[in-house]
Amino acid sequence: MSRRGTGPTRRPSELRRAAEAIFRAGVAAVDPEGAVRRVVRRRRGRLLVGDLSLALDRLEHIYVVGAGKAGVAMTRALVAVLGDRISGGVVNVPAIGHSSPDQLMARIRLVPAGHPIPDAAGLTGAEAMIRLLQQAGPHDLVLCVISGGGSALLPAPVPGVTLQEKQALTRLLLRSGATIQEINVLRKHLSRLKGGGLIRLAAPARVIALILSDVVGDPLDAIASGPTAPDPTTFADCLAILRRYGLTRRVPRAVLRCLRSGAAGRLPETVKPADPLLARGRNLLVGTNAMALRAAAAQARQLGFRPLILSSTIEGEAREVARVQAAILREVRRRGLPVRPPACLLAGGETTVTVRGHGRGGRNQELALAAAPALDGLRGVGLLCAGTDGVDGPTEAAGAWVDGTTIARARALGLDPRRCLEDNDSHSFFRRLGDLLVTGPTGTNVMDLMLMLAV
Amino acid sequence: MSRRGTGPTRRPSELRRAAEAIFRAGVAAVDPEGAVRRVVRRRRGRLLVGDLSLALDRLEHIYVVGAGKAGVAMTRALVAVLGDRISGGVVNVPAIGHSSPDQLMARIRLVPAGHPIPDAAGLTGAEAMIRLLQQAGPHDLVLCVISGGGSALLPAPVPGVTLQEKQALTRLLLRSGATIQEINVLRKHLSRLKGGGLIRLAAPARVIALILSDVVGDPLDAIASGPTAPDPTTFADCLAILRRYGLTRRVPRAVLRCLRSGAAGRLPETVKPADPLLARGRNLLVGTNAMALRAAAAQARQLGFRPLILSSTIEGEAREVARVQAAILREVRRRGLPVRPPACLLAGGETTVTVRGHGRGGRNQELALAAAPALDGLRGVGLLCAGTDGVDGPTEAAGAWVDGTTIARARALGLDPRRCLEDNDSHSFFRRLGDLLVTGPTGTNVMDLMLMLAV
Repeated sequence: MSRRGTGPTRRPSELRRAAEAIFRAGVAAVDPEGAVRRVVRRRRGRLLVGDLSLALDRLEHIYVVGAGKAGVAMTRALVAVLGDRISGGVVNVPAIGHSSPDQLMARIRLVPAGHPIPDAAGLTGAEAMIRLLQQAGPHDLVLCVISGGGSALLPAPVPGVTLQEKQALTRLLLRSGATIQEINVLRKHLSRLKGGGLIRLAAPARVIALILSDVVGDPLDAIASGPTAPDPTTFADCLAILRRYGLTRRVPRAVLRCLRSGAAGRLPETVKPADPLLARGRNLLVGTNAMALRAAAAQARQLGFRPLILSSTIEGEAREVARVQAAILREVRRRGLPVRPPACLLAGGETTVTVRGHGRGGRNQELALAAAPALDGLRGVGLLCAGTDGVDGPTEAAGAWVDGTTIARARALGLDPRRCLEDNDSHSFFRRLGDLLVTGPTGTNVMDLMLMLAV
Repeated sequence: MSRRGTGPTRRPSELRRAAEAIFRAGVAAVDPEGAVRRVVRRRRGRLLVGDLSLALDRLEHIYVVGAGKAGVAMTRALVAVLGDRISGGVVNVPAIGHSSPDQLMARIRLVPAGHPIPDAAGLTGAEAMIRLLQQAGPHDLVLCVISGGGSALLPAPVPGVTLQEKQALTRLLLRSGATIQEINVLRKHLSRLKGGGLIRLAAPARVIALILSDVVGDPLDAIASGPTAPDPTTFADCLAILRRYGLTRRVPRAVLRCLRSGAAGRLPETVKPADPLLARGRNLLVGTNAMALRAAAAQARQLGFRPLILSSTIEGEAREVARVQAAILREVRRRGLPVRPPACLLAGGETTVTVRGHGRGGRNQELALAAAPALDGLRGVGLLCAGTDGVDGPTEAAGAWVDGTTIARARALGLDPRRCLEDNDSHSFFRRLGDLLVTGPTGTNVMDLMLMLAV
């Protein structure tokens, strides 16, 4: 069924180069600075953000707030567009991994904060942000930049509860088997900024949030715990979750007191979906896995492949996801289904690894390793799986490449693919083979891309 | 992105009916009797089988042999086409589950044999088959019907090794972590019929095998351990596998003696891919998962859905496969990718369940249950997963249906979907909901179909 002679090459090395070019095109499309600049523009005295058009001379102040690993780049983009129209701002960013702020950003305080464990610096930044939001008036605009890691970088426990008590609660819930969704219900009800709190604090100012999504499916209330998104859950839900896991008497006393006050109506609820406050806010996804997939698909088409996007919301155990993807890739090769070669299947999302061994690896490298046996011996097929942030697990690689020659080359080097997988040792495996994809940190994160090529 | 107003309905009950009609069309296409009759025809004194055309008056005898769960139906089809041109035959079939043979089949001995544990009756049948094959001459034709279960139904250990010793070896290998591929290498080298043995025994007669595939990817050497297919593995491979798992001194003495004799060249090897014997044989897949998928896709199109076949070789842990499939189905609903609604995604293969709980269920019902949370609340989507044999695990159901209302309806009945999944209790879950697909045994088996609908 495949077309030969025309279109992309059948040589593994060139197939791999094509896959890497497709991956890089996907990542480039969600570069935080570029992503913000595509959405936020200034033209003839107006600020254009998505479908909004605001007269700049009617805006008294423009403030920039937010948190996340891409905070510096996103803020830089806003400064590039709005320059000295920005009156001030506070953005919490990771303590390491970004260059020092340039001159233009002098009016915005970039607070290096702890991640993934929240720390006192994050708290200080959050408090400065809250003061800024509270002083915003009806003719002011708050631009909020949100990206992955924003939840940990922006700790703001409600009065009466300490950061330590909130952390103790999280640990208890995790150990009891509560889901991340359940944990977030409690987190939001114990935070001043999450669960729409940022919008309430900013009122009566208008709030526009620019969001780079690192959560599968892009749920606005989950990315950074939704500081600008409505939250349908209640204090009563929080108490029900504690009861469900038998934790009511085991959580810190201050936490229980706060939740009960809330359930009794003595504390304000998180911002609910019908809240009129939301009319003053707007949430814009500036970068998502789906956007990266679309850009990658366009690049694949340009390189002569028929692209087919399978899903941007892939989840599950990496080695099992690998088997499903390999099964689809084999069908392309064997029967030209679901698309005829030369083809590029694209998927995105975030898998998980249940660690059982003692090796080094990441979810992307493990997925690639698990796919290798299913592709063994097939000509003209290959799979590249890598994180858009350029960092796969505790390794220096973004991901790895496998094709029909991987198993044979591994055996020739004395590597046992099955043992490596059992030991979660995908990194050693691909380093020996020279099949790692190393990009270095990319500065963005919309989870992972999985590219399956067949010629 | 979805088209509304036209095309298939959005009501869950009607969506489910559509899914069931699509499933049944897939199963009907691989009905063993019909599948054989589509491939074997008689016209103007000639027997047409696939692309072969044989003059019936030049064939001295036609014999029918074989084994498998669909043996009765496949044999009946041959009798219907060839009638009294059949000189005789032996076919091993399951001891239960088939009606008594009719008058027409008087010349073919149907031997009820043990399955999945081989027994003495199977051995007796295999020996009668071997005698028949040995008497076949150069102008004779052997038609061989092979279907799922054929390996267990057709035990024929080499001289000097007993059935019990072969079984003891299999148990040892399984406990040592050997793969099914490795186990089959040994099985074939200890069998007179497997690994191409049937073709060698029938020589100089011509052999045409009609195969209903119940193995992922339809590898001819794996279905019923390949009695008519070449086998590239060797006695030396057998000994290497025993060494790999430290079993050389632990296997039955007769087994080791036999393998060493073979490796020393004192016993014939299995039939190798270059063997000229193979020129006298032909293997025809009459029913496969891919054929069922194609027929199901055609039915889906007729019902107004855009069909897209993802793969006929799906494998992996059922609950993880479910998450990938749900992710793709969500993308159809949300972004019209990889295909716009009204759409029917189709996949096939065979998943596995790692049993950890104490409930009742099957791989298809477990897959459906695991997909339910990912579809919760979505309108106009549903997934049907069922075995083409009509039997999913130790239950009376073929599979189950889930849609966006499943979780809510379960909660209303006091069912906890997560607990049911943890306990592998998918059958109880779907029985309470009334969402089982019950077809009864269908008489065929090309593994499972997974149908994902979005309107």
